[in-house]
Amino acid sequence: MVQVAVLGYGTVGSGVVEVIEKNQQEISKRAGSEINVKYVLDLRDFPGDPIQEKVVHDADIILNDASVDVICETMGGIEPAYTFTKKALMSGKSVCTSNKELVAAHGPELIRIAKENNCNYLFEASVGGGIPIIRPLNNALTAERIDCVMGILNGTTNYILTKMEREGADFDEVLKEAQALGYAERNPEADVEGYDACRKIAILSSLVYGENVKYESIYTEGITKITPADFAYAKQMNKTIKLIGISCNNEDGKFAMVAPRMIGTESPLNCVQDVFNGILVHSNMLGDSMYYGRGAGKLPTASAVVGDVVDCVRNLGKHIGCIWDAKDAVLSDIGAFKQQYFVRAEGDAAARKAEVEGAFGEVSVVECPAVSGEFAFVTGKMSEDAYKAAAAKVSGIRSMIRM
Amino acid sequence: MVQVAVLGYGTVGSGVVEVIEKNQQEISKRAGSEINVKYVLDLRDFPGDPIQEKVVHDADIILNDASVDVICETMGGIEPAYTFTKKALMSGKSVCTSNKELVAAHGPELIRIAKENNCNYLFEASVGGGIPIIRPLNNALTAERIDCVMGILNGTTNYILTKMEREGADFDEVLKEAQALGYAERNPEADVEGYDACRKIAILSSLVYGENVKYESIYTEGITKITPADFAYAKQMNKTIKLIGISCNNEDGKFAMVAPRMIGTESPLNCVQDVFNGILVHSNMLGDSMYYGRGAGKLPTASAVVGDVVDCVRNLGKHIGCIWDAKDAVLSDIGAFKQQYFVRAEGDAAARKAEVEGAFGEVSVVECPAVSGEFAFVTGKMSEDAYKAAAAKVSGIRSMIRM
Repeated sequence: MVQVAVLGYGTVGSGVVEVIEKNQQEISKRAGSEINVKYVLDLRDFPGDPIQEKVVHDADIILNDASVDVICETMGGIEPAYTFTKKALMSGKSVCTSNKELVAAHGPELIRIAKENNCNYLFEASVGGGIPIIRPLNNALTAERIDCVMGILNGTTNYILTKMEREGADFDEVLKEAQALGYAERNPEADVEGYDACRKIAILSSLVYGENVKYESIYTEGITKITPADFAYAKQMNKTIKLIGISCNNEDGKFAMVAPRMIGTESPLNCVQDVFNGILVHSNMLGDSMYYGRGAGKLPTASAVVGDVVDCVRNLGKHIGCIWDAKDAVLSDIGAFKQQYFVRAEGDAAARKAEVEGAFGEVSVVECPAVSGEFAFVTGKMSEDAYKAAAAKVSGIRSMIRM
Repeated sequence: MVQVAVLGYGTVGSGVVEVIEKNQQEISKRAGSEINVKYVLDLRDFPGDPIQEKVVHDADIILNDASVDVICETMGGIEPAYTFTKKALMSGKSVCTSNKELVAAHGPELIRIAKENNCNYLFEASVGGGIPIIRPLNNALTAERIDCVMGILNGTTNYILTKMEREGADFDEVLKEAQALGYAERNPEADVEGYDACRKIAILSSLVYGENVKYESIYTEGITKITPADFAYAKQMNKTIKLIGISCNNEDGKFAMVAPRMIGTESPLNCVQDVFNGILVHSNMLGDSMYYGRGAGKLPTASAVVGDVVDCVRNLGKHIGCIWDAKDAVLSDIGAFKQQYFVRAEGDAAARKAEVEGAFGEVSVVECPAVSGEFAFVTGKMSEDAYKAAAAKVSGIRSMIRM
């Protein structure tokens, strides 16, 4: 019997308790040992809740109990989660977390402490909710040189974009609906401005490079400026618009960014709809592989935390390798990142194509009967800097979406 | 430095050597130790090949060399692979394989022998080529109760079906093209009759149930009877046709089968095109998750074998748990398996609907201008036995595809 403590009895924390109870049989069989929740740390009491007897308000009771081998940190935020996690790892207790803020901010340090104390700091739930993506990168694609990871990493924005596409609706309108349905927070900034996706691509980038990528250094753009007209153009091109976190490691350098992109039907990400997440990995032997599922939600996220607990139980006293090094990764200037661009501009294609090509080189005009008083074109592959320079030479550019 | 031997220098075996050489740096970093190919067993010599000095013709040289810790079995077929694998595991050498015939035939015995000798028998490459699917089932979805696995498990048939859909071409015609391009074998039976997919779903079923599923006990149907008209109907229903291996564990029992199915756009499997494979797993906490990538090919398959080697190196002297038990799973009679059916029949819908509904209960007729002299309908959810009984009462049924 392995004793587990849960820090924080919120959505994910209560989910962890529910998963361990509901799937007790499967979990014990896979872990090779029974798993028991001995403590739940929370500021609140939960009278009438099955776990009421297990609630403690003082973390030290857990940290000082030698019988506790694994801790699920489902508090979220940096403090006090950071302090509790450090203390736990230093005392040889493994920690499994869904806390992407903490992993993105202090991942390599906590992994190092776990290694020094022959225990583990696992964070499958911090990216892609219940989708196994940390494990494939860490333990499955180990014979691969990964050159690109790009993913739909935020369910709220994917839900909004999917609805905008289907209903031709405005961003604000769909956001209000999503908030009413509880799919978006009352303060949606972290989702719609791409901050959540940014922390997740920072974590994935660190695992791909084996070096530490600071989320603050990642260029991030949200979806608030996407309009029904953009989707009308996308449809003409047999594409859709997704908020994509991308991390590339190619001959031009190491690049990471979060931005909306036009995604064609040739990409499996094109099919990732509603609240689902999908992470596409490109590596030199396998080529494309994709991992798809629910990127959020109480039980999917809790399931990933408990999957980490099972891993810890299978490896008690043994550190599972992780290539995420504390050494800071040197990201290249995003200005050198090459891609194509979809651009909307005032006026008429026939009249302005020559002017546009004077600045951008050859472009392909996108016809879209649904939109009037403007035209749109797709550039060749060019760097962000080259795009900016060209765009500065052309008047009346209304918007740009990367491809 | 860990010494590895490769049994069989064919497509996958030579791929293993290539992957280990090309991604040496990444692999050593992840394995925590350098990996060296010491021997290659083959009946042939390979003069001029970089590995010519490593070629041996006698397996005992490898089995008796205590310095060899991990063996890659890429020979295929039951014998002599079975005998070599048993001897290797008994002497404490871990074995990584792409040999689905052997895994499907003797998996649980070989896993048991590995366990008894504190080594491992790993077979990620036996299903889905380079796609991590064995690992997610074994090591990631450990907190889940899995109730259904369904997948596109054979790249050759998916390539054929994708081409038939795009070009409205006949099966025979597309098969010939696929053979010319090397995507299909000269003797295509194992692929087009579903035997290959059958072995793969048998392996996945065993991992889902934790009991041994004999591939001989799985109902298997191929794609040779699929016609352009079927795709015309599918298009009308906004669906496509895929060869699906399915394994369910629900209130009606345990069911496994391989058959063509109509797959709608609501399923991520609908987007799996060409030679790609996709495996959709449904479990009680996460819901749907999908694993997508190249299900065959020299380097993707070899990469999965080498990924297993890395796992063995990380766990030298330690058996990684696997819930595949030798106990035979008791599969329910497929006759009790419930699903919907797409049925084509002679004559005219208006004239025959009443007769059809007399036998099948309420059905929805599928209009398809492209096909004349017949009509088609979709039944409600009913068991295979109930379908057969109803079909026997209706004259002129031309074909049926499950949904």
